Amino acid sequence: MIQYEYSDKVNAMKPSIIRELLKQMADPTLISFAGGNPSAEAFPAEEIRKISDELLRDEAAATLQYSITEGYPPLRALGREYLNRQFAVTKDYDDVIITSGSQQAMDILSKLLCNDGDVVATEDPAFLGAMNCFRSNGAQLVGVQMEADGPNLASLEAALTGDKKPKLFYTIPNFQNPTGYTTSLAKRKAIYELCKKHGVPILEDNPYGELRFTGEDIPPIKSFDEEGLVIYAVSLSKVFAPGLRVALCCGEAGLLGKMTVAKQGIDVHTTLWSQRVIAKFFEQYDFDALLQKLRGVYRAKARRMMDNMDAKLDGRITYVPVEGGMFLWPTLPDGVDVQAFIKNCLDHKLALVPGNAFFVDGNAPCQSMRMNFSTPTNEQIDEGVSIMAKVLKSML
Amino acid sequence: MIQYEYSDKVNAMKPSIIRELLKQMADPTLISFAGGNPSAEAFPAEEIRKISDELLRDEAAATLQYSITEGYPPLRALGREYLNRQFAVTKDYDDVIITSGSQQAMDILSKLLCNDGDVVATEDPAFLGAMNCFRSNGAQLVGVQMEADGPNLASLEAALTGDKKPKLFYTIPNFQNPTGYTTSLAKRKAIYELCKKHGVPILEDNPYGELRFTGEDIPPIKSFDEEGLVIYAVSLSKVFAPGLRVALCCGEAGLLGKMTVAKQGIDVHTTLWSQRVIAKFFEQYDFDALLQKLRGVYRAKARRMMDNMDAKLDGRITYVPVEGGMFLWPTLPDGVDVQAFIKNCLDHKLALVPGNAFFVDGNAPCQSMRMNFSTPTNEQIDEGVSIMAKVLKSML
Repeated sequence: MIQYEYSDKVNAMKPSIIRELLKQMADPTLISFAGGNPSAEAFPAEEIRKISDELLRDEAAATLQYSITEGYPPLRALGREYLNRQFAVTKDYDDVIITSGSQQAMDILSKLLCNDGDVVATEDPAFLGAMNCFRSNGAQLVGVQMEADGPNLASLEAALTGDKKPKLFYTIPNFQNPTGYTTSLAKRKAIYELCKKHGVPILEDNPYGELRFTGEDIPPIKSFDEEGLVIYAVSLSKVFAPGLRVALCCGEAGLLGKMTVAKQGIDVHTTLWSQRVIAKFFEQYDFDALLQKLRGVYRAKARRMMDNMDAKLDGRITYVPVEGGMFLWPTLPDGVDVQAFIKNCLDHKLALVPGNAFFVDGNAPCQSMRMNFSTPTNEQIDEGVSIMAKVLKSML
Repeated sequence: MIQYEYSDKVNAMKPSIIRELLKQMADPTLISFAGGNPSAEAFPAEEIRKISDELLRDEAAATLQYSITEGYPPLRALGREYLNRQFAVTKDYDDVIITSGSQQAMDILSKLLCNDGDVVATEDPAFLGAMNCFRSNGAQLVGVQMEADGPNLASLEAALTGDKKPKLFYTIPNFQNPTGYTTSLAKRKAIYELCKKHGVPILEDNPYGELRFTGEDIPPIKSFDEEGLVIYAVSLSKVFAPGLRVALCCGEAGLLGKMTVAKQGIDVHTTLWSQRVIAKFFEQYDFDALLQKLRGVYRAKARRMMDNMDAKLDGRITYVPVEGGMFLWPTLPDGVDVQAFIKNCLDHKLALVPGNAFFVDGNAPCQSMRMNFSTPTNEQIDEGVSIMAKVLKSML
């Protein structure tokens, strides 16, 4: 048999711990707080069915044919309007393109910006898929410490002024993955100013912004942009459905032109069928009603999980309450070993992800875990938190 | 405004001449032989509509949710069966994964195998999307001369034994893009032996194999594989529809495992909706009937274009007749300037692509052009060849 000679980048590629974990969890009796899936109850499945039906009846060839790389033009225009619904996000110098999920925007950007050994600064802990993506494009990661109101600014400045200037700072300001933390307005402005001062582009990833079920929306960092510094990636997986694989990416037109050329060689274009269905939804359906339904689902699930924790854990497992998104980031009391706690929960058929999995240095000690409330049913939420309480009691 | 500091790879990225050309050709009176789209008449649109309707009615959550990176398991199993319908393609040591078009298999493979400056050997001329993809992953291209029965073997051996051993040899053995040439059985075996001798993996790309409308199918190189040497990429864009963005990739399981990890960071997974629709088509519909219809459409169009050329060009523009695929590769008589001919045709509202666009060295002289017969209507084929005849006459 041939021995493949792999590139240096391959050494940096690690399978997502969570995806591997989830694959092994085929056991249907297992309750999973470990996933990161949006709530399927909120998918506008019936609308998608109707729209697709119409498109394939009346415009089949135009729906199923090859298309242009930058995306279906009506969706790019509608996406631009959508991004500007609340805040002035897109600038005169910006363009909007369609990517195959926002994961693809990360992949293309790191390919465009990183030579082997270049540095990317990222929130720490951060979204695992982003860390893997940057690393698999040859980047070294520098972590920026996270706080309940967003990245620690001193830590950010240290990352921006390290030995090697980062090619990018990666952030999820709304309901961050894995912490659920939301970056305050003041910190968003400070992040923009710091990155501007040091000439480091910002990749602002906003997969969860529409999942705010209480409190006030905070302007995205992109809305402060006056320099073409911010690339804004907006997944439509949580608003519509992940199976469609569609995201919007907004940024300086020259950069997005290069992203488009790169994307030609990566996947030619994003699934046209999905793009046209979403475009028609924006044109003909009640988007606000969709959001209202969506937020209702997430509000109820988050509330139920937080209520369960407040009622059953006697404050021994602490967490920062969230106003949206899909995740909580509870912390175990000192002295309780996280890995053992998670192992014991798994023995009781409850899956959780240990927090250290999300850190740049996966070996650093961490008393936290990621808990997802969007995927489990109400009964699973009740039962899962009861398992946590029981396990905790046995370990104290 | 910020000045982005791009990676070295960006210098190698060029927009596809054809895609740029086509974007400028919004003129609806233009006849295009320049494209590379499959014939929309052959899309099983009604079947796709029915299946999608059922899926979104009965299994909406499972159709629209996130999925695993390696692909929808039933489609992987059905894909394996499909690949083995005629020839023993998949081996015990092989795995089959789903990619977002076969373009993605090229992208992932070059990421896995190539460091900056590594060499990829490719047919010359070759599929432009592949060349751009390899280059944008840092590879240098070495061309292997094409003949009517496939790659020139001396030229292949020279490429395999050059200063740097290639990380990959890229080939389309059936109805190649851009030439329409099909590699003979003898040459397929010789290619496998040469690559085996020199330890160079083969990326066998088979987008057009099912579009054979006359003659006998020839076994894929992958069917000779005993070493895990061949990665076999099979687009489903021409059999079903490109707007679905689904392809099969078959190769040694260890390599495909690494491809899966890389794909996690690239686009998480291929559009699940499309994958499930294709799986259900394989399960419940008459695939042979689909192929028969498909081949009928391509046979008629190819026949019409070749008949037109035979009737109108007095043998002055020569070509190798094709038994399938989407392209002809006609050659102008010596003394007729190709660029001028194409410019004159465009003035008469006919678009063609100059052959030199498809060569590793785009500046090398080339008397050929790529002509696509799958996209134009019958009337456009008649009229387009008449324009070629008129222009040629004016230039002789």
